[in-house]
Amino acid sequence: MVNEAIKRGVVMQGILEQLILENKAITKMGKVADYIPELSKAQADALGVTIYDVHGNLYQAGDALDKFTIQSISKPLVLLLALLDNGEDRVFSKVGKEPTGDPFNSIVRLETFNEHKPLNPMINAGAISVSALIHGNSAEERATRILNFIREIARNDSLEVNRAVYESESRTGNRNRSMAYFLKDFGNIEIDVEEALEVYFKQCSIEISTRELAYIGAVLSRNGRDIISNKQVIPERYCHIVKSYMATCGMYDGSGEFAINVGIPAKSGVGGGIMCTVFNRMGIGVFGPALDSKGNSIAGIKILEALSREFTMSIY
Amino acid sequence: MVNEAIKRGVVMQGILEQLILENKAITKMGKVADYIPELSKAQADALGVTIYDVHGNLYQAGDALDKFTIQSISKPLVLLLALLDNGEDRVFSKVGKEPTGDPFNSIVRLETFNEHKPLNPMINAGAISVSALIHGNSAEERATRILNFIREIARNDSLEVNRAVYESESRTGNRNRSMAYFLKDFGNIEIDVEEALEVYFKQCSIEISTRELAYIGAVLSRNGRDIISNKQVIPERYCHIVKSYMATCGMYDGSGEFAINVGIPAKSGVGGGIMCTVFNRMGIGVFGPALDSKGNSIAGIKILEALSREFTMSIY
Amino acid sequence: MVNEAIKRGVVMQGILEQLILENKAITKMGKVADYIPELSKAQADALGVTIYDVHGNLYQAGDALDKFTIQSISKPLVLLLALLDNGEDRVFSKVGKEPTGDPFNSIVRLETFNEHKPLNPMINAGAISVSALIHGNSAEERATRILNFIREIARNDSLEVNRAVYESESRTGNRNRSMAYFLKDFGNIEIDVEEALEVYFKQCSIEISTRELAYIGAVLSRNGRDIISNKQVIPERYCHIVKSYMATCGMYDGSGEFAINVGIPAKSGVGGGIMCTVFNRMGIGVFGPALDSKGNSIAGIKILEALSREFTMSIY
Amino acid sequence: MVNEAIKRGVVMQGILEQLILENKAITKMGKVADYIPELSKAQADALGVTIYDVHGNLYQAGDALDKFTIQSISKPLVLLLALLDNGEDRVFSKVGKEPTGDPFNSIVRLETFNEHKPLNPMINAGAISVSALIHGNSAEERATRILNFIREIARNDSLEVNRAVYESESRTGNRNRSMAYFLKDFGNIEIDVEEALEVYFKQCSIEISTRELAYIGAVLSRNGRDIISNKQVIPERYCHIVKSYMATCGMYDGSGEFAINVGIPAKSGVGGGIMCTVFNRMGIGVFGPALDSKGNSIAGIKILEALSREFTMSIY
Repeated sequence: MVNEAIKRGVVMQGILEQLILENKAITKMGKVADYIPELSKAQADALGVTIYDVHGNLYQAGDALDKFTIQSISKPLVLLLALLDNGEDRVFSKVGKEPTGDPFNSIVRLETFNEHKPLNPMINAGAISVSALIHGNSAEERATRILNFIREIARNDSLEVNRAVYESESRTGNRNRSMAYFLKDFGNIEIDVEEALEVYFKQCSIEISTRELAYIGAVLSRNGRDIISNKQVIPERYCHIVKSYMATCGMYDGSGEFAINVGIPAKSGVGGGIMCTVFNRMGIGVFGPALDSKGNSIAGIKILEALSREFTMSIY
Repeated sequence: MVNEAIKRGVVMQGILEQLILENKAITKMGKVADYIPELSKAQADALGVTIYDVHGNLYQAGDALDKFTIQSISKPLVLLLALLDNGEDRVFSKVGKEPTGDPFNSIVRLETFNEHKPLNPMINAGAISVSALIHGNSAEERATRILNFIREIARNDSLEVNRAVYESESRTGNRNRSMAYFLKDFGNIEIDVEEALEVYFKQCSIEISTRELAYIGAVLSRNGRDIISNKQVIPERYCHIVKSYMATCGMYDGSGEFAINVGIPAKSGVGGGIMCTVFNRMGIGVFGPALDSKGNSIAGIKILEALSREFTMSIY
Repeated sequence: MVNEAIKRGVVMQGILEQLILENKAITKMGKVADYIPELSKAQADALGVTIYDVHGNLYQAGDALDKFTIQSISKPLVLLLALLDNGEDRVFSKVGKEPTGDPFNSIVRLETFNEHKPLNPMINAGAISVSALIHGNSAEERATRILNFIREIARNDSLEVNRAVYESESRTGNRNRSMAYFLKDFGNIEIDVEEALEVYFKQCSIEISTRELAYIGAVLSRNGRDIISNKQVIPERYCHIVKSYMATCGMYDGSGEFAINVGIPAKSGVGGGIMCTVFNRMGIGVFGPALDSKGNSIAGIKILEALSREFTMSIY
Repeated sequence: MVNEAIKRGVVMQGILEQLILENKAITKMGKVADYIPELSKAQADALGVTIYDVHGNLYQAGDALDKFTIQSISKPLVLLLALLDNGEDRVFSKVGKEPTGDPFNSIVRLETFNEHKPLNPMINAGAISVSALIHGNSAEERATRILNFIREIARNDSLEVNRAVYESESRTGNRNRSMAYFLKDFGNIEIDVEEALEVYFKQCSIEISTRELAYIGAVLSRNGRDIISNKQVIPERYCHIVKSYMATCGMYDGSGEFAINVGIPAKSGVGGGIMCTVFNRMGIGVFGPALDSKGNSIAGIKILEALSREFTMSIY
């Protein structure tokens, strides 16, 4: 039995190393995010993967320990904290639940802002609404609570905000700033707009590696139960909520394609990371800063497609 | 072992009957679709459910054998036939793959018609595009091929188009007609518009019961393998495609809420039906023509929520 | 005094001939409309102008007597007949009054269809709404009444619908058909949709020359009083209405530029015609089927700019 | 001859006083703007009018000398200064020229932001773009140059910014702030966003009376020639530009209705003022802070309708 497990581990390790090797060249077909100067400094051909299974086994290959900023992958995590802080009713009074929002009889959908709230917590406007709900007496305090929450569920107390990225985001984030003032105008954001933006820009600038993504993915795969302590660190219901968003709209407008080809809840960020969760089996973190036209790690997706095929992961 | 199975069957049967009983009153809070006169004739408090498990066991309660028109539940089924007729590349040259289509940097989403194609095959415009791809030399022939395909995967040769509903849909379907001419204008629909609409209105008017929905759901749950013959009647890949749309946008703009509360691929129709599929376990068909504000069976959803909790069905 | 008038006439004639000569080359920079085959047969370098002054003097140069289809120039004329048939209240219950429709606090304008009616009678959707209001028991009768009305106010009983253009418009007019079914869906169009479209396509296919445009322009310049009979053929109020639309949105999305550079009420059509009216002074008709990117006669606009400067015509 | 003029003056004076009397009650049907606290303090039944004719005669009735903030009436005036500072090419590289922007073949208009610029200088987004073009090394300097320009063309050196209104606008102007950051994001605004907003909020907060509106209207009616000095204070071309915007979209989405019923270039503000210009004859200023649903002075419009009828002012 032990031998069997070791053998499986060796096989898995080999597969991951093979996948890194095979997909390295694909990074050349992508493009590192350059909307802020700091992001454009990423090494374009970096590629790494970590798998954390629910038994606590860890498999890593390539640049698995490289640091990068979490960016949009913070959205589902901050949503978890917002739910813990405020409960479902209050959170969903500020942000919609729908991936698409097309009523059954619409000829053309005209607004992202339905009933004066952003469509869902995975689009930027919705994520800013959610960040504004995090408890705290100042932007600093709210951002620190987010950082501590992510440290805790990822079991890594050394995570930090990358100041250079944060300042760069804050300086150039005019589109997000525009959305935030629009939300403020109709009362969606109750705190000071610049404070909400500081929280949002800081959460996006937290530096992680694929290990943290895989670990959190594994906790989500167990519906909130920690891998090591076996303690329920997130309520099961909130895990359902977050995983359903990851599945329906976690990969920007590549979500439909990803559902067909990979078929697992996942969230990507323009820093090059993708966090995935395979029910009751494992969490997966990949990193590859070269992005496709939709903002997702181009080689990272290829690795996930191969893993899904190899281990029959699709939930569909 | 046999005794065990019988016991399980008795339990399941009891649960379904209990659920019908408990949720009957909820039908009063919904409203039968009345956009066409024929639909408004449905009995508002009807409520039925069928479960077909992958071992071929059938459980039914309430108005499980009532006939109703399939309406939008035809969308994933006609998509399967369109894929069989045309292959993936041609189908997705006419219709998008995305549930939401929000690019990662949009401030406001402005068009359902992205790159001159409807967003996805589950919205009406996309479904009409797909219907226009079904092979055949006339509307009649195309519609008959759809009917025969549904008869075959549902294993029921007696299915028919309800003429009164079809004629009513055709006479009053000006919004769909508007969309179809818009699609024609930029070359999306290649056949005659009225022919495409005839096919679409006929497919929506096929009469089924929860038995057919459960049976097809069970076939989908086995990724295309028939329950009785064990033959692969639909390619696995196409089942993945269809189930991913059902999961992300199968319940109109109640899809997000349904994903959180039920968490299984499902497709509803304004006739009151919902078709569900639980991976490798079962198909479920429910029927209750009283609809909620989003066009989904109001009591049907309650039954599915209870079943999902009871049998831990959520894929998230 | 007579000599003076003759001298002025000779001067005007010379100016028009000069303008045709000078602007002939500009036709090469435009493009004949080709969305229907019949229109694309127009002679690309044709260029003509007629001025009819309120004293009944007629000045013509170039291809002033060439026949072309009236197209969108029918919109203000059919609006006049609809007002005569139905009165203001009923007409404006079906179509909006606003050139722009931006409420003072909108961030982004999202709909042409405000309160379920087209924005104004100069856009296609609004014009189809208006055509559906013309009295008559059949499309034929309605279209004939429009033709007779235009014959009457233009004082030319020989005007006819160009059948080839009409059939071509009808066969290929899917975008207009789409809009008409959309209008029908929310009850804006009360008659049969195809009947409304037949009226609309026929009114667009009436063949005229610059003489008719100039004559009608002169009648409008006198607020509805005929040049020859001095009879009030259109109520003054309706002339105000129509001229205000011509001034604010008569030149498609070149209306703002035209207001600045020419500054008189005008309506263009993709057949190459432009009908203008100079208060209490004259009507002007120009024809040049080579269009600019906005659908207006490219050389025709140049001639009007020159005339406006030369004779200080701008109302601004 | 002198007697004749005096008689005309007496008649005019009588008419204005009569109009104030007749329309006072109508103020009750409107509503003072309350989106900022300072505006809501206006006396709801105030009503005043000034006419300045091109011979320098001044007629006033009612609350003609009441002070109120200029608000959107600043838009055409700042556009004049922006044109003087930058020339036409640069101004129109930042803001569109079109009142409506519906291309001749659109089914639904989807964006105010066409080619990444606001539609025209009369909507808020366009006005902020224009304010950002005013020369100066700081917000203070730019705002002062605007104030001085308006003082000069209105011939009133005592005009000032109302600090309380400015601060209130700045504090609550989140929708304008949202638009400004959106414009900044795609490079439309080149200066600091908060600086552009300070300029915009200050220009809106300049306090004037109907006298200034009438005087500037009279200067515009003479295409830029001052009434007293007869000097060309604004180039004729720029007057054409500004008057064409006033005519096509100067009254928010009541512009179409106003064109039909009054038919002269006019610009309103939510402070209750309307500035009008009657070609070669006069300028008119009205003030009545009770607004209709579109944001225009409800009694002010009635007075203008009566004046237009009485003196045949309509340009259509």
